Amino acid sequence: MSIETQKHITGSRTWPHPEVVEDLAQLRQSAPLTHCITNSVVTNFTANVLLAAGASPAMVVTIEEVAEFVRIAQALLINVGTITTTDAEVMLKAAATAQQTNTPWVLDPVAVGALRFRTDIVDQLLRSKPTVIRGNASEILALCGFAGKAKGVDSTAPSLAALPAAFQLAEQTGAVVALSGEVDYITDGKEIITIPGGHEIMTKITGTGCSLGALIAAFLPVTRTAVRAASAASVIFAAAGERAFREARGTGSFCVGFLDQLSTIGIRE
Amino acid sequence: MSIETQKHITGSRTWPHPEVVEDLAQLRQSAPLTHCITNSVVTNFTANVLLAAGASPAMVVTIEEVAEFVRIAQALLINVGTITTTDAEVMLKAAATAQQTNTPWVLDPVAVGALRFRTDIVDQLLRSKPTVIRGNASEILALCGFAGKAKGVDSTAPSLAALPAAFQLAEQTGAVVALSGEVDYITDGKEIITIPGGHEIMTKITGTGCSLGALIAAFLPVTRTAVRAASAASVIFAAAGERAFREARGTGSFCVGFLDQLSTIGIRE
Amino acid sequence: MSIETQKHITGSRTWPHPEVVEDLAQLRQSAPLTHCITNSVVTNFTANVLLAAGASPAMVVTIEEVAEFVRIAQALLINVGTITTTDAEVMLKAAATAQQTNTPWVLDPVAVGALRFRTDIVDQLLRSKPTVIRGNASEILALCGFAGKAKGVDSTAPSLAALPAAFQLAEQTGAVVALSGEVDYITDGKEIITIPGGHEIMTKITGTGCSLGALIAAFLPVTRTAVRAASAASVIFAAAGERAFREARGTGSFCVGFLDQLSTIGIRE
Repeated sequence: MSIETQKHITGSRTWPHPEVVEDLAQLRQSAPLTHCITNSVVTNFTANVLLAAGASPAMVVTIEEVAEFVRIAQALLINVGTITTTDAEVMLKAAATAQQTNTPWVLDPVAVGALRFRTDIVDQLLRSKPTVIRGNASEILALCGFAGKAKGVDSTAPSLAALPAAFQLAEQTGAVVALSGEVDYITDGKEIITIPGGHEIMTKITGTGCSLGALIAAFLPVTRTAVRAASAASVIFAAAGERAFREARGTGSFCVGFLDQLSTIGIRE
Repeated sequence: MSIETQKHITGSRTWPHPEVVEDLAQLRQSAPLTHCITNSVVTNFTANVLLAAGASPAMVVTIEEVAEFVRIAQALLINVGTITTTDAEVMLKAAATAQQTNTPWVLDPVAVGALRFRTDIVDQLLRSKPTVIRGNASEILALCGFAGKAKGVDSTAPSLAALPAAFQLAEQTGAVVALSGEVDYITDGKEIITIPGGHEIMTKITGTGCSLGALIAAFLPVTRTAVRAASAASVIFAAAGERAFREARGTGSFCVGFLDQLSTIGIRE
Repeated sequence: MSIETQKHITGSRTWPHPEVVEDLAQLRQSAPLTHCITNSVVTNFTANVLLAAGASPAMVVTIEEVAEFVRIAQALLINVGTITTTDAEVMLKAAATAQQTNTPWVLDPVAVGALRFRTDIVDQLLRSKPTVIRGNASEILALCGFAGKAKGVDSTAPSLAALPAAFQLAEQTGAVVALSGEVDYITDGKEIITIPGGHEIMTKITGTGCSLGALIAAFLPVTRTAVRAASAASVIFAAAGERAFREARGTGSFCVGFLDQLSTIGIRE
């Protein structure tokens, strides 16, 4: 891949970056109603993550209500993790409605490229112009290949290896791409923001990636740009993950501590 | 709204009210099989709340089994939080069966009034005569409007503002109404019991309201009256919430502590 | 029931049995991709249990993807706890595919015998030859009756009372049977391994049995025999349960501590 993404890296953000502090305060004040159509494994955790951070989650998932609720909500998350035949129709309607109503929305294309059905649905969802696409290296690479230009990447550093693909995907789709990994990268196809931190234990509980997508959605109606929304959510996750790890005795208490940190970061410190 | 509900307030209950202590002991002894048809965000938490308190939860949610299981179970909860087309049919069948078999049941009309499909289904569910209706101020107001008599209420004190509506709804439907908020109110349209306590942090984790509905259902086959069932569950929730808050470091540990308190209240003290 | 199962008991296993220690190390090294089609109450907990122990869970649950994913995964769990009309078709296809591809799989026949629809589906699932059947005493007795030979058992010691049925079910089906209870019994219809330990509090949180089934599935591609897979998972659960109980303040902290123990057993000791 020939794109030289290094030169587009405009900076690194960690807590307490002043823009993130400001955006989090704003999130807590406005408690944006965030419509989540997500997978069955992480619904509870996602709701608790949004509540802890200060947003107002709502899961409305039936075809009769989904368009009505997209019009009420301030942001939308679509995560295809456990997509079913019925869900697919609901997701497509939600995305189309979000596009019509200019409701900002996040697409989390879980396991795209690995299974045909979801890959086809994600392709269709992309036509409704997500504001942000959040995924790990494999997913971003798959999506980019999809767009017809990506090649195999054999780097051993997952998120960095997919950075050119993320950049290209942002350029092609007009979405901000949030590439999650050891380091998170946020790009709009012009600049790239790097977000270090977090901890490997975050991959040992289910739902950290999925709920990050939800928190990005919650920030979208609050921040000036989608890059800032994705950055704020990622910075807060990285800080909460690091802090929770320090006091964890295993993955159970990590999970509890992570929510504790999300609900207190910037308040009790 | 002209109803003077104040004069119907017959008392306030807090832990350890002797009736609640007695009813909880009875719940733990009989471990009532409680059939929950609830929303996808809170299934796990609801099951853990019922187990912690001493009931025996079971989620049976398919059309082929639902009537059969209503006949086996001692109580039923129907919560429309994430209702789907398929769920609606299951809920209507469960409610109709409960009415036929005199199985006591709780209706939790999540977000009724806000979305048309669920509002219509809740209207149909009401015809099967729930034993208890549990909701927050907005939901109770919406349900009452539904019954054709309520007007807008612009009080800023949510649960108190909906108290006349709760009273009226109980009169009209014959159900006990459990109105949740900063203070909980339980009414059968004759007397009103107030339950203070709890803590605001309970609104910062998902599922406290939904699992309260489930615990009310679990108490129904145990207590002498439905008012007592709703009161017992609400008093226990308020006490567990207050105690858990005192030791919480954020919303994650609050959630854990809340289950700890439910599983030990009246035992280790 | 005339089978004398006592003479087939070949030994008792507790942590740190050398085979279990070896198998757990192998599980952590290979992180087997474990396809879980499980009930809606325990998806999150099951995923967290598998991650804590070192496996790689994935929930793929739609008819369009299920056969494709069984071919990718290294093991499969089918748990009928909250089975729906749609799920039934998915489960049957998954099981049939697993049989074709020699993917080892676990059947968890929750509440079989109690409700007709699931009992019929479980009967059909058995034709696809599960590698392991995991259930409690009632379920194993129901399944055995099913096979046409079991009689009522009126012992008060649940798991021991179902041991002859477990033995017979293993003989009849060719599956290893993992009978869960105060003592767990694992049998292939030739030998019986007993696994004492655990703690009663494990029945006071939802999902311990269901996630045990998932962990058995995760061990299947790793261990030399299915008996060893079922034993390893059961021994680890018993040890984690005992240890977590010692530090628990109630069911909430037990649940957290249980995941902590699973994620550290054999590492930080």
